[in-house]
Amino acid sequence: MENTIKVAVLGGGSWATALVKMLCENLDEVGWYMRNKNAIQHIKEQQHNPNYLSSVEFNTDKLKLSNDINEMASYADYLIFAIPSAFLHEELGKLSTSLDNKVVFSAIKGIVPESGLIVGEYFHNLYNVPFDRIGVITGPCHAEEVALERLSYITVASSDEEKAEILANKLAGPYIKTKISDDIIGTEYAAVLKNIYAIAAGIAHGLGYGDNFQSVLMSNAIREMKRFIKRIHKMKRNINDSAYLGDLLVTGYSIFSRNRMFGNMIGKGYTVKSAMMEMNMVAEGYYATKSAHIITSKQKRKSKTPIIDAVHAVLYEGKDPKKTFLKLTEKLD
Amino acid sequence: MENTIKVAVLGGGSWATALVKMLCENLDEVGWYMRNKNAIQHIKEQQHNPNYLSSVEFNTDKLKLSNDINEMASYADYLIFAIPSAFLHEELGKLSTSLDNKVVFSAIKGIVPESGLIVGEYFHNLYNVPFDRIGVITGPCHAEEVALERLSYITVASSDEEKAEILANKLAGPYIKTKISDDIIGTEYAAVLKNIYAIAAGIAHGLGYGDNFQSVLMSNAIREMKRFIKRIHKMKRNINDSAYLGDLLVTGYSIFSRNRMFGNMIGKGYTVKSAMMEMNMVAEGYYATKSAHIITSKQKRKSKTPIIDAVHAVLYEGKDPKKTFLKLTEKLD
Repeated sequence: MENTIKVAVLGGGSWATALVKMLCENLDEVGWYMRNKNAIQHIKEQQHNPNYLSSVEFNTDKLKLSNDINEMASYADYLIFAIPSAFLHEELGKLSTSLDNKVVFSAIKGIVPESGLIVGEYFHNLYNVPFDRIGVITGPCHAEEVALERLSYITVASSDEEKAEILANKLAGPYIKTKISDDIIGTEYAAVLKNIYAIAAGIAHGLGYGDNFQSVLMSNAIREMKRFIKRIHKMKRNINDSAYLGDLLVTGYSIFSRNRMFGNMIGKGYTVKSAMMEMNMVAEGYYATKSAHIITSKQKRKSKTPIIDAVHAVLYEGKDPKKTFLKLTEKLD
Repeated sequence: MENTIKVAVLGGGSWATALVKMLCENLDEVGWYMRNKNAIQHIKEQQHNPNYLSSVEFNTDKLKLSNDINEMASYADYLIFAIPSAFLHEELGKLSTSLDNKVVFSAIKGIVPESGLIVGEYFHNLYNVPFDRIGVITGPCHAEEVALERLSYITVASSDEEKAEILANKLAGPYIKTKISDDIIGTEYAAVLKNIYAIAAGIAHGLGYGDNFQSVLMSNAIREMKRFIKRIHKMKRNINDSAYLGDLLVTGYSIFSRNRMFGNMIGKGYTVKSAMMEMNMVAEGYYATKSAHIITSKQKRKSKTPIIDAVHAVLYEGKDPKKTFLKLTEKLD
């Protein structure tokens, strides 16, 4: 049974490309949906994704490429969504194929902006996918290092352990180690929140704070993340596991992180709007900040989240980054 | 009473220099012992330590400089030791002044090689200093950033809260925030162990592992540190506080860390001996590795410390770094 399972990746970006590469190590055929026809043509002819991780060479005999999301949804048993959260709602608008009996994994680290929901909740609420057919694939994992075949550890979470195990086996390989987890809510929120903390790290760096402060910020961030997630979904979890702390660190310490870069520009004096225009994209953490703030604002006794609050004040309340972070430094320890 | 307390820093290195700078913000007089007469002369004439943090300017009217350790020990009520652990035993050999009624703080992040003890235990065992007159000053804090007056957070630990509070107040200032703790054993072991993990990070980097692996290594390191310290001294502590996790991160992610640099050279193929010669010094983590390994080896049911074990195998058992770390990757998650 397990060997006949069909897996498809939906998305054309770097993380989607990395996931397809991992799956090709283990499967004879991998479904790959992306909307860009030219990119599909390029991959078929040149064996490389022209836009992302272009150094990765694919054996195109293994790829079942399509720009028709319904064709891909009919084909696969396991659908791995790796579409940026900002485009997910629009992309799924095209979906007429039923998701009944499909297993949906999210490799998206973000909040669906139209709904304020994490991806698992989104599929559950809008597409009636039961939680035992929902899963999460999470890092710490820069796609660029997968392209270089540098050893990386991935966590595959599902409330149905068997499904997590099946997909973990399809992803594991010489440079990928996998671990399974049953914490689909916590791992996904961790992946979302870490982008907010990466923005905070960027703002601090842009304002001239150094490495000593960065380490204090990260130490406070993991404690804040623990409190936040515990409120949403209380269960036994070790917040220092790779899927939580590791993922926070790989992003918070990466000078290539788009979220950190976005924060850095704001710390250096760019307005939110001009930083977005300059980057020609919206950092995932931008939406995550809004959603996380809405969640804590609705709590009767609000979680203590000074870092999220500070980032929200800067991004959405027009507050001065310098003054806001000066106040934040009083709340950290 | 508090205002008449005399404080002295013992040591001439960068961390000692940074501590004197902090104290000068709050005190009218700061004792400063170092054995190098020429450096003392230079500071008196030029207001700068010629060898470390030479950009820092001192108001020499405030400095009570001496190269006589007994003079300094007689002078001060609070003695802050910031001598590299490798020289502590030799330096204290000169001490004939009694430490009765003195409060001894360690700002040394290392094991005293002759004894295998952390500094607090060393003063307790060899000088009969009771634990309520022993304390620890710990980071996360690169001295270089103190010189630049970049915001840093320091933890001052003592089992006597009042003494921690007194010294914390003397160190706090516009760019230094302080926190007190009663975990003198745990904070000092954390400061010692983090150097072993920095060596591990360096070895991994030297072997070609990337940022994804580094984050997994740090996530495993903090869990290992928690287990290790819990075995030595069980008490309620949050291992994600700045004094533990923050200190691990500031060192483990610093490309300037001597321990990480030492590991990096070994990962790149230097022998232990040639790496030491090349660096012209012994990294603190080198001794720490041996002591930590002795501690776990003596345990009836050994703590699970795969990272310490791997570093020990490379540094002391002549094991091949590449093979040893390949095995280590199987034990991490």
